[in-house]
Amino acid sequence: MTDKHLWTVIMAGGLGSRFWPVSRTDNPKQFIDVTGVGRSMLQLTFERFTHICPKQNIVIVTGKQYADRVREQLPDLLPYQVLAEPLRRNTAPCIAYAAAVIGKIDPGATLIVSPADHAIFHREKFKADMEQAVQTVAEHDWIITLGAQPTRPDTSYGYIQFDDKPSLPGADNLHKVVTFTEKPPVEMARQFINSGEFFWNAGILVCQLPVLRDAFRKHLPLLADAFFNLGITTPWEELERVYSQCEAVSVDNGIMEKADNVHVLAASFGWSDVETWDSLYDVYRHDQNGNAVVCGNVFSYGSHDNLVFVQDGKNVILEGLDGYIVAAGADTFMICRRRNEDMVFRFSSDVELKKLIDKK
Amino acid sequence: MTDKHLWTVIMAGGLGSRFWPVSRTDNPKQFIDVTGVGRSMLQLTFERFTHICPKQNIVIVTGKQYADRVREQLPDLLPYQVLAEPLRRNTAPCIAYAAAVIGKIDPGATLIVSPADHAIFHREKFKADMEQAVQTVAEHDWIITLGAQPTRPDTSYGYIQFDDKPSLPGADNLHKVVTFTEKPPVEMARQFINSGEFFWNAGILVCQLPVLRDAFRKHLPLLADAFFNLGITTPWEELERVYSQCEAVSVDNGIMEKADNVHVLAASFGWSDVETWDSLYDVYRHDQNGNAVVCGNVFSYGSHDNLVFVQDGKNVILEGLDGYIVAAGADTFMICRRRNEDMVFRFSSDVELKKLIDKK
Repeated sequence: MTDKHLWTVIMAGGLGSRFWPVSRTDNPKQFIDVTGVGRSMLQLTFERFTHICPKQNIVIVTGKQYADRVREQLPDLLPYQVLAEPLRRNTAPCIAYAAAVIGKIDPGATLIVSPADHAIFHREKFKADMEQAVQTVAEHDWIITLGAQPTRPDTSYGYIQFDDKPSLPGADNLHKVVTFTEKPPVEMARQFINSGEFFWNAGILVCQLPVLRDAFRKHLPLLADAFFNLGITTPWEELERVYSQCEAVSVDNGIMEKADNVHVLAASFGWSDVETWDSLYDVYRHDQNGNAVVCGNVFSYGSHDNLVFVQDGKNVILEGLDGYIVAAGADTFMICRRRNEDMVFRFSSDVELKKLIDKK
Repeated sequence: MTDKHLWTVIMAGGLGSRFWPVSRTDNPKQFIDVTGVGRSMLQLTFERFTHICPKQNIVIVTGKQYADRVREQLPDLLPYQVLAEPLRRNTAPCIAYAAAVIGKIDPGATLIVSPADHAIFHREKFKADMEQAVQTVAEHDWIITLGAQPTRPDTSYGYIQFDDKPSLPGADNLHKVVTFTEKPPVEMARQFINSGEFFWNAGILVCQLPVLRDAFRKHLPLLADAFFNLGITTPWEELERVYSQCEAVSVDNGIMEKADNVHVLAASFGWSDVETWDSLYDVYRHDQNGNAVVCGNVFSYGSHDNLVFVQDGKNVILEGLDGYIVAAGADTFMICRRRNEDMVFRFSSDVELKKLIDKK
């Protein structure tokens, strides 16, 4: 039986811009079936948490332009379960808003905060880790963040340095956090990994709601004042006022780096933020030729190590192609070497620029 | 002013199977805007001949399944201008059928017979060549075929060997035909070209209708009997009977190789049968990186020598791709090295096979 005081906040406001041309500003990654299983990242995330807390305790925070999309993909939600943000203000305001609303409904809530668009493997292990974290914060006024074992010096991830000594006797998967480092240079990332003292930041938090509120009051007092006085429902104009006046800051920068009660739980589950095409390639199953076919009816001839993402059941013929991303969005087809996927930003801006020029 | 006794027969019954996945059995090459100009090959061919003979003297012969498509693309045709064949029986029956119908309307007609799906460049030169041929057959009981200057030992073309001596004094672009050779091995094709005695067979004929009828009577008497007794309109059942009983034979094999009054006019216009992706690449304009973009809103980064054919105004991102065909049909996207386009047959049969398996 799940704890009726356990709540989950799913942050679903991202733009997923590196996943172009499949993700677009009007259809970001969390709403896409990125892993080719027939359900979007948001739907998968929601479903994962229905095994951990009551369904009606799952709250989705998203941008106002995506609120309808959330309700489309998760049609049975109650009104308070979809919170629309008037402006993008990074994760701290997003979490404060959700915590404020949940606090009005259930002041003694325990919170799990999770991104909507990360891939989680081994969901039983995920559930067990969540249960351990929830159990721990029931007994300690801590904020627990989840850390994933780093496997390569990825420069797009956040890194968490942890204290060598376990936080609790007998729990050697739980350590006090020493530092947070967002997106380090590759040399630094390499040193982090070699030191054995770092996890990747999986972006998942677990804590008692009052502990979180106290942390906001201490480290982001203006934000705390603005948000924790809101009711269960807030007139849209007032919410716009609050968001337009509040600081845009991540919970990692604003709270986690400063608070001294942050501990990291080593995730036993597999994790990827699937923030890039190549990270999807890494986590996806490969056929005997190293091709990762997420979607697309692929016919491959002498082709290796490609990532294919072509929706709508289209046939894809690959002949003599090695190491490419082959991806199709609504109006764009992309063939790009996997090692050059950093150019995706340039592609998307070039396409947008051309649209503007064509309009004139 | 165009001669009211000049008629054109456009043969539009091909399957264009090498142009997959853009051309399909239900949408063959002649109905496609292969050259990216906004009009199909058939429309371009029709338009080209409206400058040469009266519009109402242009007759299209096509398969019964394509007759509606012809009327869609050329909406102003009179009933006798679209002749539907019940069965595919190669070019000799097709030409006999059209000649029979035209002969009933205009027994003294001069005929031009042309494929619907070849690319012609320099249309003024094309018109001048047609005028010379028409003028010549008005004075001589000859069948004139058009020959294109070969530029490479292409093994998919037909070759016409011609007599060194001009057919007429002062007309050194007109020679008596010595032999026809269809699709020679590459070594033979090379020898043909080196000899300087061969043209490519452009598949265009010009002659007086009675001369053509006499040639049918002499060389394909059964076909002549079956077709030249038909009226302007023939009940469908009778046409089915005629076609089901008639021999399937090309006009080159059945008539041209045997007749001794066949002359070849050296085309001064540019010609390609555009029968393969690579032949389209050859004739199409290349950008400074050697990319031939027939259609598709291409954004190219470090990519060279590709042929792109992606319809419906879609964006196509090419990054680090050299020497490929990038083509999209309704339900299939193909990336294939240009030098391996012979595999297209295998791709299409593999896709069809998979469809059959999936249905079961």
